[in-house]
This record gives sequence, C-alpha cells and structure tokens, in this order.
Amino acid sequence: MVSTSEPVGIAGAAVTDVAHYAIALGDDALIASQRLTEWITLAPQLEEDVALGNIALDLLGQARLLFQYAGSLLDPPVGEDDLAYFRDERAFRNVSLVERPNGDFAVTMARLLVFSAYQLELYSRLVQSTDSTLAAIAAKAVKEVAYHRDHARQWVLRLGDGTAESHARMQTALDAEWPWTAELFEAGWLAPELVAGGLAVDPAALAQPALAWVRAVVAEATLAEPEVRPAVSFGRVGRHTEEMGRLLAELQHLARSHPGATW
Amino acid sequence: MVSTSEPVGIAGAAVTDVAHYAIALGDDALIASQRLTEWITLAPQLEEDVALGNIALDLLGQARLLFQYAGSLLDPPVGEDDLAYFRDERAFRNVSLVERPNGDFAVTMARLLVFSAYQLELYSRLVQSTDSTLAAIAAKAVKEVAYHRDHARQWVLRLGDGTAESHARMQTALDAEWPWTAELFEAGWLAPELVAGGLAVDPAALAQPALAWVRAVVAEATLAEPEVRPAVSFGRVGRHTEEMGRLLAELQHLARSHPGATW
Repeated sequence: MVSTSEPVGIAGAAVTDVAHYAIALGDDALIASQRLTEWITLAPQLEEDVALGNIALDLLGQARLLFQYAGSLLDPPVGEDDLAYFRDERAFRNVSLVERPNGDFAVTMARLLVFSAYQLELYSRLVQSTDSTLAAIAAKAVKEVAYHRDHARQWVLRLGDGTAESHARMQTALDAEWPWTAELFEAGWLAPELVAGGLAVDPAALAQPALAWVRAVVAEATLAEPEVRPAVSFGRVGRHTEEMGRLLAELQHLARSHPGATW
Repeated sequence: MVSTSEPVGIAGAAVTDVAHYAIALGDDALIASQRLTEWITLAPQLEEDVALGNIALDLLGQARLLFQYAGSLLDPPVGEDDLAYFRDERAFRNVSLVERPNGDFAVTMARLLVFSAYQLELYSRLVQSTDSTLAAIAAKAVKEVAYHRDHARQWVLRLGDGTAESHARMQTALDAEWPWTAELFEAGWLAPELVAGGLAVDPAALAQPALAWVRAVVAEATLAEPEVRPAVSFGRVGRHTEEMGRLLAELQHLARSHPGATW
C-alpha cells in the first residue's frame, strides 16, 4: 500500500499517476472487450465467432492485469472488480473509439484495425518501461495484439478488395471510425513525469508508425484514406459519448444488483 | 461425398445416422455456448467473465468440429455455418437443458455441473469410438470438459456451502434444473446400430456415473438432492422449449440477414 502523501514513488513519478495510467490503458481494453463480446455467436461465421471471442478475452485479460496493478497502487487499495463494475461513467478513461457501437461487421473490423495498430506500437515500446510491472504486462499483451492486428488486416483486405457491396461497406466503416482515431495519439491527459521517466509511452509518438501501417493496409485493400476532421472527443478525461451509458449499464448491471458479487 | 443410397458406411452404421449423431452432440455444444456467452462481462467477477468466456469458446470449438464432420457425411455436403445458422428450430437436436434461459448465476452453474458431468462421461468413452474422427474430436473435448466440470463444482461448493442466501439460491437453481437432466440419458433418438457397432456411446449408460458424481458434489455442498419429476422434453427429436426460438433468433439473425456471410 502506498500513501498519496508520498508523491514520488516509481521511477520519479507519483504512484497515483502510474495508477491512473494503468487504469486508462485497462479501460481501453475492457471497453473494447465488451463491444467485441457483443459479436460472439452473431458473427457471420462460426470461425469468426471463435476468433472474436478470443480477441475479446485477450483484451479482458489485459484489463484485469492493468486494474490489479493500478488498484494495488491506490490508497486505500482497490480491487479489479471495483474498478470494472463500481466506477461511474465519468471515472472511465478509455478513448471514445472503443465505446462506439458495433455497427456492422465492417465497422468492427475498421475499429479493430486502428485500435490494434495503436496498441501494438504502444505495447512494443512499453516492454521497456522503467516500471517492471507495466513492462511485464506489455510483454504479454504485445503478442496478443500482434494477432489482433493481423486478424483485422485480413478482414479489411478481404472486404475492401471483395465485392462491390463489401468494398462500399468497408469504405463507409473506415470513414465513420477515422475521426475517432486522433484521440489515441493525444498526450495531454498524461502526467509528463511518466513519459520523462521512461515509465509511460508518449501517445503522440505512436501516431506516425501506427497510421503509416494502417494507411498501407487501406491502400492494399483498394480503399481510400478518409478525408475527415478529427472528432471532438474527451474520453481520456471522462467525458464519454452517449453510447457509453448503455454499455456500462450492461457491463455493470449484475455486479451492482448483487453487491458482494457472490452473495 | 457419400450417397444416401449407400446406407452402411462407417463401422456398420448408415453414414446419415453418424451425421445426425454428430449434429446432436454439436447442437448441445453450440446452444450451451450461446447461453454462456450471454454471461460474458455480466458475470459477478472479471475473473469469472474470462472463465465463462473460455468455456463458451471450448464448446463452440466442439460444435464446429462436430458440424464439419457431420456436414461432410451428408449428401450433398453441408457447411458448418449452414448447420449453425440456416437450420430451423425443428431441425436442432440439442437437449432442452442447454437452451433454458440463464436465470441467475447459480442456475448457470447448476446447469454446467450436470451438463459437464454428462459430457465428461460421454467423451471419455467416445475416445474409443470405432469412428476415428469422432474419437479424435472426443480426445480433444474430454480435456476441456474436465476443466468445465471442475469449474462448476468449485462454484456449487462455494455457493452451496456459503451464506444463507447463496445456499438458498443454489438449492433453488438445482431444483429448477434437475428435471431437465433426464433427457441427457435417453437413448431412443439414437440409431441402435451406432451403439451396437461401437461408434456411439449409449446415453443410458452414462446416467449412473454422471449422476453419482453430481450427487457427491451436491452432498459436499450441503445441498439436498432435488425430489422432482423429470420434465417432459423432446429436444432430441426437434421439439424445443419456448425459449429456443428467442435464442435462435439471436444466434442466426446476422447470418440470415446477410446471406453469403461476408457480402
């Protein structure tokens, strides 16, 4: 347990800042997992059901590890289930991209393409974090998101370079999700000491490599890069889109209606 | 491809009978998977979300292998997705137990306890099937359901031997599901040649070992064995409960609204 009156704790950073960093990354993973599980046994193929289910479970596993670590740093300590089920909407720190409704299958794949490209650049750098716990979590996650990214790429290529209808749907999906990608690379919410101390990765530094990779896939899929303005989104500071309320209601309903979880 | 005019094909059994046997086992797994995925991110703990998600994916994997094999035996051959998404309710052969609505968490665990006990006895014998494909599917499945059975046991013990409320809920759940267990051990739907030829396992032979194991868990959990009449259920011949229609609507909606699956 770490007291909040002891601000410099890990690699020159306040422990609560580290906790909040881990929570933000965990929220991204948890909310993305929740949206993906909505697809299970609704996907267009049994094989895809299994694939999306596995991706959702990978993300849920990342969220658990990040919440366990963050919760251990807070004073008083907080459990992973408290972080997942008993925070109110304004306390969630995920980017808006991951809370957006599933739409059709092309939308889900457009979102996974960008999100996994971001996550791969993030975790492949976070393995060198001066915080050994974050480095260990990243080392596990980087292998998982490499698979997610490849899976999304395969589908974007297949739909983009497929029939006239699949091409049109994939382009529409990409156009709809593109404005929400900018928030992934915003750094303003992050305590500067975390990046300066080598503990966290600067999100702004991920934009070039992640988007270069996405653009190459878009071109290979015979799709056009969207020319759209970034959306105004403030998920990282707890201001979420309208759909977040419904998502949290579903995610948190059971745990809240049976406090203490297992009766 | 096997013609239906060639009735004796595998270990002295008609290939269509083998196909129907594989479909029935696959339907059990598919429908049980669908109900379990309804729990993901609704379970009382993140850890349990992950566990239920993995169990659901195991069952979905079993369904896929069984459907792939069954579909290859039919004339003309039928794909796994056709079997999952394009059969009408009356063509599904799963036992009614697995299609029953989730109810509370205790109900889900009561059902998993009985179903996995049945599946473990089934697959541990089916590994010696004279049909080498069924034997191979069973060899993979038996390891998975051993874990499912142990997971359900842990929860039934924890809830049964827990608080007054958890005990009462667990007993209510067991009483509600118990009548639906009899159908697991009925043999009338199965072509006798399959059992005689050592290809299929006689469901009636599984009742004693499976129920003896369940009864031991019930006693250890300080619960009372339900004294209830078996329900009248005909899932194995395609007559399903009211809830099956809603489950299939959700399972099949997307594939049916986009025939050809990937546009």
